[in-house]
Amino acid sequence: MNYVTIKDVAHEAGVSVPTVSQVLNDTGRISAATRQRVLEAVRRLDYIPNSAAISMRSSSTKTVGILVPDISNSYFSYLISLITRELLVEGYVCMIGSSSESLEGQDRFLRSLLTQRIDGAILIPQGTASRGLKKFVASGLPLVILDRQVRDLPDAGRIPVIDADPRPGIKAAIESVKARGHSRIGFIHGPTAKSPNLLEREQMFVDIAGSRLGNRNALVSEHVSALSAIRELLSRKVDTFMFGYSPDALEAIRYFRLQGLKIGVDVSIISFDDIPVFELTAPSISVISQQQGMMGDYGVRMLSSLMQGRALGEQTEDAFGRIRIPTLFIDRESVGETCTVA
Amino acid sequence: MNYVTIKDVAHEAGVSVPTVSQVLNDTGRISAATRQRVLEAVRRLDYIPNSAAISMRSSSTKTVGILVPDISNSYFSYLISLITRELLVEGYVCMIGSSSESLEGQDRFLRSLLTQRIDGAILIPQGTASRGLKKFVASGLPLVILDRQVRDLPDAGRIPVIDADPRPGIKAAIESVKARGHSRIGFIHGPTAKSPNLLEREQMFVDIAGSRLGNRNALVSEHVSALSAIRELLSRKVDTFMFGYSPDALEAIRYFRLQGLKIGVDVSIISFDDIPVFELTAPSISVISQQQGMMGDYGVRMLSSLMQGRALGEQTEDAFGRIRIPTLFIDRESVGETCTVA
Repeated sequence: MNYVTIKDVAHEAGVSVPTVSQVLNDTGRISAATRQRVLEAVRRLDYIPNSAAISMRSSSTKTVGILVPDISNSYFSYLISLITRELLVEGYVCMIGSSSESLEGQDRFLRSLLTQRIDGAILIPQGTASRGLKKFVASGLPLVILDRQVRDLPDAGRIPVIDADPRPGIKAAIESVKARGHSRIGFIHGPTAKSPNLLEREQMFVDIAGSRLGNRNALVSEHVSALSAIRELLSRKVDTFMFGYSPDALEAIRYFRLQGLKIGVDVSIISFDDIPVFELTAPSISVISQQQGMMGDYGVRMLSSLMQGRALGEQTEDAFGRIRIPTLFIDRESVGETCTVA
Repeated sequence: MNYVTIKDVAHEAGVSVPTVSQVLNDTGRISAATRQRVLEAVRRLDYIPNSAAISMRSSSTKTVGILVPDISNSYFSYLISLITRELLVEGYVCMIGSSSESLEGQDRFLRSLLTQRIDGAILIPQGTASRGLKKFVASGLPLVILDRQVRDLPDAGRIPVIDADPRPGIKAAIESVKARGHSRIGFIHGPTAKSPNLLEREQMFVDIAGSRLGNRNALVSEHVSALSAIRELLSRKVDTFMFGYSPDALEAIRYFRLQGLKIGVDVSIISFDDIPVFELTAPSISVISQQQGMMGDYGVRMLSSLMQGRALGEQTEDAFGRIRIPTLFIDRESVGETCTVA
């Protein structure tokens, strides 16, 4: 890696290294013009002060950065509200940013976050190792990755990853669906096709549903949009839908209502994510819960240990160094007794 | 990687690339209609201008702070997601913080925000002028207050405040309730008793419902908890509930369901806040919408002007220098024809 150093910035701005340092640390007497020149050089070179320098600036800022894929997805807003409350209790303020489910949105927030004064971060990243994420990891800041794995992240071994193990939830859901006489299930994995976690859910669905109901009754769909996937699976005579991404299930509820299809009667639904709305719809929606409470808890405890330089302690890690929270199937009213779509 | 480019936006909007660029950079003379078309294309395609171009424009940090009362309240998470998307289009990254509906949470975030590198802020504050808020105002940073007024804020005159005018929505709701033969309405204002906006809703309810249905049929309740308020009003033979704070309405839906009371039949509900869940419940819930889209839009435009040192332009301000977005009553299925609680 070829990181920009403070020397590069000084050279670019035509000033000395201590001057750059003073500007970045907001110390000393620097003219507005010089300050401007330094900051422009910082921006032009995309210079990020290294974390050693950051932490030397002050003992601790008691601020934590949080990256969330989409703040309007209530699975995330609920998880984040749990985390911010727990961190507040431990004396930390959170700076939250949304990637709006895009790599570029993510990287712009992470780049900005690195220039801020934070003690550490909890990131729920996109599924591929973006430039911004690599840079963030390389900064050496205390860091925990939550809920979503990242493909091909260098140095990933030293970063705690806490996510949900989809197997137990999917298995229990399919058993229950089968016991009620349904024979044809479709899975819709959600829009972020590159997320290892969403793809893993799909793969596990294919394995488990295939072995219980026969491969030709375990259907998956291309996902151009949630609606196109729902329509495709309906046309292939699916009687039960499983959603890997809860916003898609919300779209399905709207669509089925418009089409006059009764959930739990004409068509059955199970969705990932235990979000409050699924309890309030009628019928209420059966879910595969990732136990966000537990996930948030682990995340806060591990980040807190890292920020205080404590050992992580014994954790239940799998072969890849991840902590996996088992998913739970919560049975409600959206899976009916044997039914078929006309 | 398949990023949306400025060419895609131009194509989608049916204009030239320089025109898109001028709209995004706010240069040149562009008609309001074209501007609108371009911004709609930007939104539709989820286009993100490249940051290199943006950062060369100025030496600002291109970061905006956002304070939200409670990130798990979907009224706020939706409003904030609109704002962050619009700001992203304008090249700004957002650092979001939650006050968890407490003055202390608010002040800790604001204090931390002041030590960060931001160009400005959009705040949805608690109702009383806390120490942290006063300090933030005194910093002179570009600032817009959204959705909630603040009592006794020094120097408030120079800070744009954009909130909702509750009158039109409450008036239309009460007309509709009366037309369907309901005679006894109760109002529950929510937990933040010190919020001028929540108290204003209650006062307006008392005025309007009192004059239409008679004062003894327009009831309000002490609010220890949502549940205690609901129970109290039920015992006072209220047949229609109006909620000033949507999380209370969600609790009511749960409670009525547990009690076997059918919404829209045994009891009627209207709630403030047009949040997605109210469309997904059965029956769907009639709401008084604050038109968040418009509110967010105004907020972003005004902050953007302030950060760029432009004049705020002509705005529809009331006598107190606020911009008030009229509320809208959206009639759905939760107000039934004449019914009484047994």
